[in-house]
Amino acid sequence: VSADEPRATAAPSDDAERAARAALTVAAEPGRLALLAALAEQPAVEVLHRLRRGDAALDPDGRLGRRLGDVDGAAVMERARAGGIDLVVPGDPHWPAGLDALGGVERDRRGGLPLGLWVRGDPRLLCSSRGLAVVGSRAATPYGTGVATDWAADLAVGGLVVVSGAAYGVDAAAHRGALAVGRPTVAVLAGGLDTPYPRGNASLIERISAEGLLVSEAAPGATVNRGRFLLRNRLVAALAIGSLVVEAGMRSGALSTAAWTLALLRPLAAVPGPVTSAMSCGTHRLLREQQAVLVTCPDDVRELVAAYGDLAPLPVPDTRALDGLPEPLLTVREAMPAHGPVWLAELVTATGLPLPTVLAALDALRERDLVDGAGETWQLRPARRTGA
Amino acid sequence: VSADEPRATAAPSDDAERAARAALTVAAEPGRLALLAALAEQPAVEVLHRLRRGDAALDPDGRLGRRLGDVDGAAVMERARAGGIDLVVPGDPHWPAGLDALGGVERDRRGGLPLGLWVRGDPRLLCSSRGLAVVGSRAATPYGTGVATDWAADLAVGGLVVVSGAAYGVDAAAHRGALAVGRPTVAVLAGGLDTPYPRGNASLIERISAEGLLVSEAAPGATVNRGRFLLRNRLVAALAIGSLVVEAGMRSGALSTAAWTLALLRPLAAVPGPVTSAMSCGTHRLLREQQAVLVTCPDDVRELVAAYGDLAPLPVPDTRALDGLPEPLLTVREAMPAHGPVWLAELVTATGLPLPTVLAALDALRERDLVDGAGETWQLRPARRTGA
Repeated sequence: VSADEPRATAAPSDDAERAARAALTVAAEPGRLALLAALAEQPAVEVLHRLRRGDAALDPDGRLGRRLGDVDGAAVMERARAGGIDLVVPGDPHWPAGLDALGGVERDRRGGLPLGLWVRGDPRLLCSSRGLAVVGSRAATPYGTGVATDWAADLAVGGLVVVSGAAYGVDAAAHRGALAVGRPTVAVLAGGLDTPYPRGNASLIERISAEGLLVSEAAPGATVNRGRFLLRNRLVAALAIGSLVVEAGMRSGALSTAAWTLALLRPLAAVPGPVTSAMSCGTHRLLREQQAVLVTCPDDVRELVAAYGDLAPLPVPDTRALDGLPEPLLTVREAMPAHGPVWLAELVTATGLPLPTVLAALDALRERDLVDGAGETWQLRPARRTGA
Repeated sequence: VSADEPRATAAPSDDAERAARAALTVAAEPGRLALLAALAEQPAVEVLHRLRRGDAALDPDGRLGRRLGDVDGAAVMERARAGGIDLVVPGDPHWPAGLDALGGVERDRRGGLPLGLWVRGDPRLLCSSRGLAVVGSRAATPYGTGVATDWAADLAVGGLVVVSGAAYGVDAAAHRGALAVGRPTVAVLAGGLDTPYPRGNASLIERISAEGLLVSEAAPGATVNRGRFLLRNRLVAALAIGSLVVEAGMRSGALSTAAWTLALLRPLAAVPGPVTSAMSCGTHRLLREQQAVLVTCPDDVRELVAAYGDLAPLPVPDTRALDGLPEPLLTVREAMPAHGPVWLAELVTATGLPLPTVLAALDALRERDLVDGAGETWQLRPARRTGA
């Protein structure tokens, strides 16, 4: 090491970095490119300090600094975790490599990398090389929702993980298709994961969190707005190896997901429909402009994306691991909440079993990879799926 | 002229040539390439003589010669003319230049130039540079027939002449669409024009002959068979500047018309439909294989073929020329058959007018370009349209 070389700054701890990023997700809208550029150069802890000091280069109008106020990232994370919500940041094992391409997309497509991803469910689904975005109109026709459900089920059985936005219409139909065949699905939300949107899909979104994964770059508590919806679409595209547009009107948000897919140089498929249907105008435009490939069946979709991902069949979910559990393991397992940690004392109350019995059962469940934890706090392993 | 140059054979008269070709259309199936090659070199009268002499090079198994027997081409034409059917041969003013490309299509696509075209209706529609083939499944869905009718009407109003095969389903719907807006349409039949096929479309076919044009390379009396259906499709493609496939199953004859269109290097358009419809499988395959361009409206079709033809609006049919006729011209005009010649004596009987009055009215009608003829035989001008 030469004497001229600058002294390395002491690396902040992983926890401090994560907390800093948590605070930034509370204060900063997605797509602040100056902020992203700073984060590419410096630890998040440093960037947070600069903002709090009122660094004009980073925050010319001081708005970010004001919104940061005294936000405590660690506290935000702790409250989130109580609701089963975790933060995944760059460098984490589950951080999706597919997002990196967002950093390379032209500057005039505002967006860039997310500061972090808030997740609820099985985070292993994040780094899947099997994600397939299935998107379309909220005002879908029965033809569109039928195709979305049927194809999503077929594609999910074939090993792809359906990624969508949990909106009404095609999005919801696609999620439901995957869930109907017992396969996980990923929903990217525009607002905080503690307040599912749209409300009408609340039970669907809850089920996705239990059997798949919810993702948002907005911190818990964040409400939705048009800008967040549009930037959400870039994550749907980036978390997938390719996108399928089922139905889209001329101004459908699905066309924004399609545009992001093309900007990421990933394959785009579109389902044709009757020329008499306004809900097929958008897909037909993509096809006429040769931006999308016309697909007529799930095999056509697989053929298109095969070169971009790992399409070996996923192992079938192993529900027998739970079905065959001996007592009192089954009782303890069933008393645990689907998400988030639970206190040992709560489990004793809930099961009515003696504390040593509960503790021994938790140890046995942990050996079977069904729960995580030790001592006072425990929680379910996010999903029961075997395999990566 | 050098003394070494071979003496030119005396050219046979146009009538003899036409009669020879008429006889050949009775005896020879379409697509006899040796026969076509001979006709490219020699007058038809000569070729007919060779066949009758049992020329083995031209007719190895003698079958053509036997079928020719003592067929009298001039008599065939005379009988045809009585039914309003004429023969158009290469060199005639109405011979369609668009057919010549069939001579250049690879030899393994059997077909080649027709020996002649039997026509009934307005032969000016043959040499239109405005023909658009509109084809599809016989077992079309309501979606397919709806699109065919609506688009054919729109395209016909815009100046294109709808060319199709008068089959059930898409073909008939396309013809009807054009007729519904008072525009001529061209139907290419596989059998003789005296026996319209399919029978269920007889009244439609009759109307096409009155307001448009029927075409067949088969002589009157010829029945339909599979080979004739397939070769008929090449004429549908060749009489058009481009083709539109509305609906097609995987084995639809419309795909044969599509293949001929591509072989002729002319633009091919296909209408998408629901992926759940078997009747859109063929069109979707054309689109997936990028053989056809996806079109969603008549404007898309016009845009595609605009470079290949003359798309200036056709003049609107001038019905006032007839409406305003003074008596007795109107009475005489209305007594004339839609097709074929009529004896002067018949007109006298039909109108109940004195012979000199009828003859004077016919002369006046001829001056107005509404009838042709002189003396004993007269016939209507094929169509009332103004303009070419």
